[in-house]
Amino acid sequence: MRFKHALLAILTLCASCWGQEVKSQSAPTNVPGSEFPRLNSDLSATFRVQAEQAQKVQLLMELGQSTYDMAKSTDGFWEVTTKPLLPGFHYYLISADGFDSTDPGSRTFFAARKEVSGIEVPAAESEFFAIKDVPHGAIRIESYFSKATGEWRRIFVYTPPGYDQDSERYPVLYLQHGWGEDEAAWSHQGHENFILDNLIAAHKAKPMIIVNENGMTGINFAPPPAPRSVTSTPPSPSPSRSMADTIREERYVLFDSVISQDLVPFIDAHFRTIPDREHRALAGLSMGGGQSVRIGLNHLDLFSYLGAFSPALFITDTAKDYDGALADSAKVNRRLRLLWIGVGGDDFLLGPVKGSHEALEKGGIKHVWVESSGAHVWTVWRKYLNDFAPKLFQ
Amino acid sequence: MRFKHALLAILTLCASCWGQEVKSQSAPTNVPGSEFPRLNSDLSATFRVQAEQAQKVQLLMELGQSTYDMAKSTDGFWEVTTKPLLPGFHYYLISADGFDSTDPGSRTFFAARKEVSGIEVPAAESEFFAIKDVPHGAIRIESYFSKATGEWRRIFVYTPPGYDQDSERYPVLYLQHGWGEDEAAWSHQGHENFILDNLIAAHKAKPMIIVNENGMTGINFAPPPAPRSVTSTPPSPSPSRSMADTIREERYVLFDSVISQDLVPFIDAHFRTIPDREHRALAGLSMGGGQSVRIGLNHLDLFSYLGAFSPALFITDTAKDYDGALADSAKVNRRLRLLWIGVGGDDFLLGPVKGSHEALEKGGIKHVWVESSGAHVWTVWRKYLNDFAPKLFQ
Repeated sequence: MRFKHALLAILTLCASCWGQEVKSQSAPTNVPGSEFPRLNSDLSATFRVQAEQAQKVQLLMELGQSTYDMAKSTDGFWEVTTKPLLPGFHYYLISADGFDSTDPGSRTFFAARKEVSGIEVPAAESEFFAIKDVPHGAIRIESYFSKATGEWRRIFVYTPPGYDQDSERYPVLYLQHGWGEDEAAWSHQGHENFILDNLIAAHKAKPMIIVNENGMTGINFAPPPAPRSVTSTPPSPSPSRSMADTIREERYVLFDSVISQDLVPFIDAHFRTIPDREHRALAGLSMGGGQSVRIGLNHLDLFSYLGAFSPALFITDTAKDYDGALADSAKVNRRLRLLWIGVGGDDFLLGPVKGSHEALEKGGIKHVWVESSGAHVWTVWRKYLNDFAPKLFQ
Repeated sequence: MRFKHALLAILTLCASCWGQEVKSQSAPTNVPGSEFPRLNSDLSATFRVQAEQAQKVQLLMELGQSTYDMAKSTDGFWEVTTKPLLPGFHYYLISADGFDSTDPGSRTFFAARKEVSGIEVPAAESEFFAIKDVPHGAIRIESYFSKATGEWRRIFVYTPPGYDQDSERYPVLYLQHGWGEDEAAWSHQGHENFILDNLIAAHKAKPMIIVNENGMTGINFAPPPAPRSVTSTPPSPSPSRSMADTIREERYVLFDSVISQDLVPFIDAHFRTIPDREHRALAGLSMGGGQSVRIGLNHLDLFSYLGAFSPALFITDTAKDYDGALADSAKVNRRLRLLWIGVGGDDFLLGPVKGSHEALEKGGIKHVWVESSGAHVWTVWRKYLNDFAPKLFQ
């Protein structure tokens, strides 16, 4: 599989500028004009940063899950070439004598509650989220007031191609990011707009509006924290029930109000939506997947399609979980037109998500179950959106 | 003046949460949950970063124009408190043993061709760009194909409040960033949307569309550069004529084609504009100001209002400059409804801009001339937009 990825990537990596003599090229996530990081033909990447007086410089791939020591050259620059990387998107940081920060050569992305660097490793399978010569929708940055939180909030809204020219009404997918990210993630990291543009152009998905809110809402997300966390990886939700209970109480109740009482009415008032449950979907990744299932089951009056991508999902007993919202399986199956759950074989949440799938099976709750390849990464979530969106509003 | 700024800021800095016992608070540009950097009541700011093994850590305010050595505490954190800062927006970096990068406590902004940190120091005078309980427009991220550059390009488009609800047509302001920034700058750093929302709500400016393109176009901006520049401050345009000639050739001609041949037709085709010169303005800051005057004078068929904020402007002889476009002053004065030029007294471009103003006076070219307080910073450019926009399309 790795070999196939690499081969495809070699064949397609910027085919137009990849001559026989070219052995490496700037990553597409570089800031304009930056030579490094560079992608090599075996899909390894070479990183290079300046840190003249540093004693130790490291590359923290996936925010520290994989660490490389960088080597100092005579000119004050530090360099390292990684092992071949999986095609797709990778968060990373540079650590210089214990200062963990961004690489000046790359664009930043909001993750783990801070700005981090990202590197895109393109391959043939990147085509579905590439910008192509098809009609394009737009991403709108909108402001609206939430009574639930008492503040103006920023949302990102994808409107499909032609939205400004026609007078049609559209269904809406509410689509959420994961822990530590924000409302920009699905466009900036996820390329939701190009995924939908391409699906719509190929007549594979119905034209739809997509709304991204900020799920990092509530006291659990805005404590007076320590000045800087020592670990650079986000804490992962514990699969224990007590942790799930805590998450539900602190993380889900307030955001439920934001979505159900403030956001949906705002969207229906300000966009040409089809304002009924048959034309509303709610989905998300990781924490956002857990939020989507929880809030969706609590609001079957609002949503009839639910999606959970590598979700923080800890279902063990459909008779009791979600305050009994799954207990009457016939009723749930009648109301829910789609419950889509996907997780990668290398995902640290595979266990609880698979357990949730089995509990749903046992409880007679119909759902689409996808166990894909991949880990807890955007590479997987982009593919999930590409698989999920065509199943909506048909 | 400094004292007045500080006093106003103390009185108004987040008035709702600023109790008598509160001596400092998180900056509004911090990532959510980050305690540092903190703003103190005298408008100084305290920065704190982790760099356990570092030997020397510095704060580079304004990307190095003002440098502070940080002091190490026993817990591996480094800290420094600045002198009182001017209210407004400041770019900055952290340098740890020669590794110049972003502060994990702050949001990043694109400047000097890379991602850098920013800190907002709020004050009473920040009110005009604050989000308020008024109708809000939206920022749209759009994609369009430029034949001039042969690529899909990303633009930001502000649509005024009510644009989606009404069927009116609107005038358009094309508004450009400075060297090393990009099309996101006027919304992210500049808050153009809230400035216009507030002006429109107060009936001080006509509702208008604003379009932001990326002016870093052309071979001068995309060379295969050195891996990392040693200096962290952007090279400033030289006021010499030969440099100005070079800039004109390499920096302006291609972007002229992007604007005049590709962008204006796209905007007129996809937005409800009033598609004539009487309802089009072109303005920009620094390099973008120079571009606006150059491209605007070359396209008086397209634009009748021009704005130059702290511009890279080197006019010495209106009979010869811009290939004679200013030579017939009566004709220019008849065609241009507004030529607005502003620069701060502490701006490094004050000399050439003032010289350009004097040359225009001598040449009989009517223009509005504003010599304000302030340096070459976003704090000034936000105010300029707030002054300039009400003069458009009246």
